[in-house]
Amino acid sequence: MTTPSFASLSVNTKSRTYDIHIGVGLIHQKTCFEPFVQGKTVVICSNEVVMPLYGNALSKTLEQAGARKVLMHVWPDGEDAKHWGSIDALMGFMLSNHCDRKTVLIALGGGVVGDMVGFAAAIYMRGIPFIQVPTTLLSMVDSSVGGKTGINHPLGKNMIGAFHQPNAVFADMQTLQTLPIRELRAGLAEVIKHGAIASEAYFKEVEQNIEQLLAFDLQQLQSIVYGSCLIKANVVSQDETEQGIRATLNFGHTFGHAIEAGLGYGTWVHGEAVGCGMIAATMLSERLGMLKKADAMRIHSLIEQTGLPTVLPNLGSERYLQLMSKDKKNDAGKIRYVLLNKLGSACVSEVDDSIVIEVLNALNPLRANHHD
Amino acid sequence: MTTPSFASLSVNTKSRTYDIHIGVGLIHQKTCFEPFVQGKTVVICSNEVVMPLYGNALSKTLEQAGARKVLMHVWPDGEDAKHWGSIDALMGFMLSNHCDRKTVLIALGGGVVGDMVGFAAAIYMRGIPFIQVPTTLLSMVDSSVGGKTGINHPLGKNMIGAFHQPNAVFADMQTLQTLPIRELRAGLAEVIKHGAIASEAYFKEVEQNIEQLLAFDLQQLQSIVYGSCLIKANVVSQDETEQGIRATLNFGHTFGHAIEAGLGYGTWVHGEAVGCGMIAATMLSERLGMLKKADAMRIHSLIEQTGLPTVLPNLGSERYLQLMSKDKKNDAGKIRYVLLNKLGSACVSEVDDSIVIEVLNALNPLRANHHD
Repeated sequence: MTTPSFASLSVNTKSRTYDIHIGVGLIHQKTCFEPFVQGKTVVICSNEVVMPLYGNALSKTLEQAGARKVLMHVWPDGEDAKHWGSIDALMGFMLSNHCDRKTVLIALGGGVVGDMVGFAAAIYMRGIPFIQVPTTLLSMVDSSVGGKTGINHPLGKNMIGAFHQPNAVFADMQTLQTLPIRELRAGLAEVIKHGAIASEAYFKEVEQNIEQLLAFDLQQLQSIVYGSCLIKANVVSQDETEQGIRATLNFGHTFGHAIEAGLGYGTWVHGEAVGCGMIAATMLSERLGMLKKADAMRIHSLIEQTGLPTVLPNLGSERYLQLMSKDKKNDAGKIRYVLLNKLGSACVSEVDDSIVIEVLNALNPLRANHHD
Repeated sequence: MTTPSFASLSVNTKSRTYDIHIGVGLIHQKTCFEPFVQGKTVVICSNEVVMPLYGNALSKTLEQAGARKVLMHVWPDGEDAKHWGSIDALMGFMLSNHCDRKTVLIALGGGVVGDMVGFAAAIYMRGIPFIQVPTTLLSMVDSSVGGKTGINHPLGKNMIGAFHQPNAVFADMQTLQTLPIRELRAGLAEVIKHGAIASEAYFKEVEQNIEQLLAFDLQQLQSIVYGSCLIKANVVSQDETEQGIRATLNFGHTFGHAIEAGLGYGTWVHGEAVGCGMIAATMLSERLGMLKKADAMRIHSLIEQTGLPTVLPNLGSERYLQLMSKDKKNDAGKIRYVLLNKLGSACVSEVDDSIVIEVLNALNPLRANHHD
């Protein structure tokens, strides 16, 4: 097999520097994994959907790369598995198999698997190495960069976790071929977000290629994954533990989390809620006189073209405010909104409830204009 | 109330710099806590033995120091409580009480409480501040410095955890007045260890004052707590995540952990196992020709004078080797022993099983000479 072409970028954080490699066919390349697994015990962690697709191929590659022993641990699929019981099962599996501090964990899957493996790596014997092999667009552009790991608590999503940087990320575009279209659209929500908050040029690239992206064009996907990682890495390297600028990455997420919690987690996937949340945050930025109407329309239109929802679920504005006030990014109970100054530039601010309510009402399904 | 005299020292780690304050009556001093709790929600975590003794006094001090709200969370006493269920209960308590990322946790108690609170602080919303108020000699000289936090897993002690540094430590000697003598002796084991591995002068101070220390002389205790923290801080600041020199702090612990696991946790307290473990590691150092007989005798004699066990439980040498090979500090299954070159200087090395077995047999209760 010839060496595939791939793009690499370096993420610098206070605690660690690591590389993200983005290409086609990486999970078959032993040279990718050699520096990390040679002579080590490796545990591939995945879920019951992804492990059967890529587990054996990756395991074979790891053996060729010189791993001393390759073990596999499978969780149930989905957000419901993202709780302590799953972590505890992995801890027990690793202890029974005499995994020590040099054991390397590999997260093969989407964001849920990545979050759980990262958290397990953060707390097993007070921290061991881990490698991300994201297999969804969302996890490639979102959770590969940033070191956020964690699980859910019955009283709140992602409430338990740690900042723990991976030792490397390998984003293999080939794994996107098995991704359901709904998941692809959800990943594109974060892609659009990166353009909206940080780079008009990148936003334009997505705009111009949205049809090829939705048609799973792997070269085009590779290009936008690279661009997204670059933007996110730039933000995160300035602010690893989310004291300042990193908060702008939550554009669309304050409304988005309220949608997810209000509908019940899993009704909409995360990217759908974020897409619709960006519609609300964009309108809010426009109403506050910060964002030009033309820019707001471009954002609205791209989200719509991507096939993401643009009309808020009808939870009632009271309920939205109540849910948003619980967001863990808030400061002493005050809701902090990420707003756009212009396409490609964001800031964080409190906003009068009355203006938020106006926006919520304007986007109410009973009143909103459908564009489709 | 007049301001008590207290000694302070600074601990510098890669991730944080914080101060340890050591004095008499600190839990009544609002000025100590003001910089950390003003305007914040504070959760005092303790166990059912310590909370009734000092919880109300500390709570009053925190209110005087300007805390916005003071909450209390109580766990059962003892090592048996050091599991995920206890952490989960605290997480639920905090989420129900709308604790956010600015909430401050306070660990009021010994090592178990400190380890659990530190771990909870490490993983609640991916990390919040915490303050240690150690109330046992062991936790004052051991867990106040180093940032090791964690819980037990049914398959191993301290197998789940994180490195998370406190924002401050307040060691109030007054709280030692309620400490059982057995716990005082156990704390002195770590005190002796610090002298043995790092400073003959400090060892001598302990030797010369052992009677006052065992009589709960608070000024003398303050002096040796300060000395121990200084030694440990010096080691830890060079090696926060235990890649090198920090391993010497495990002097006596390889044998000690085997004793604890072999007898069943809780039969001997940790300090007793470490004391006896140091007897074994000292004899091993002597047999290897590294440590002079006179130095070995001084260590043996001080451990004996402290009232710590000097004869190994009769588990059989096979079982000792098996238990020690499971230690998480090992490298690829090889047992790594901390040995003394001389009184005040340690190193880490593998040792032939045959020599270890000789030492284990020599310290066997059926063969050993009792000195008492």
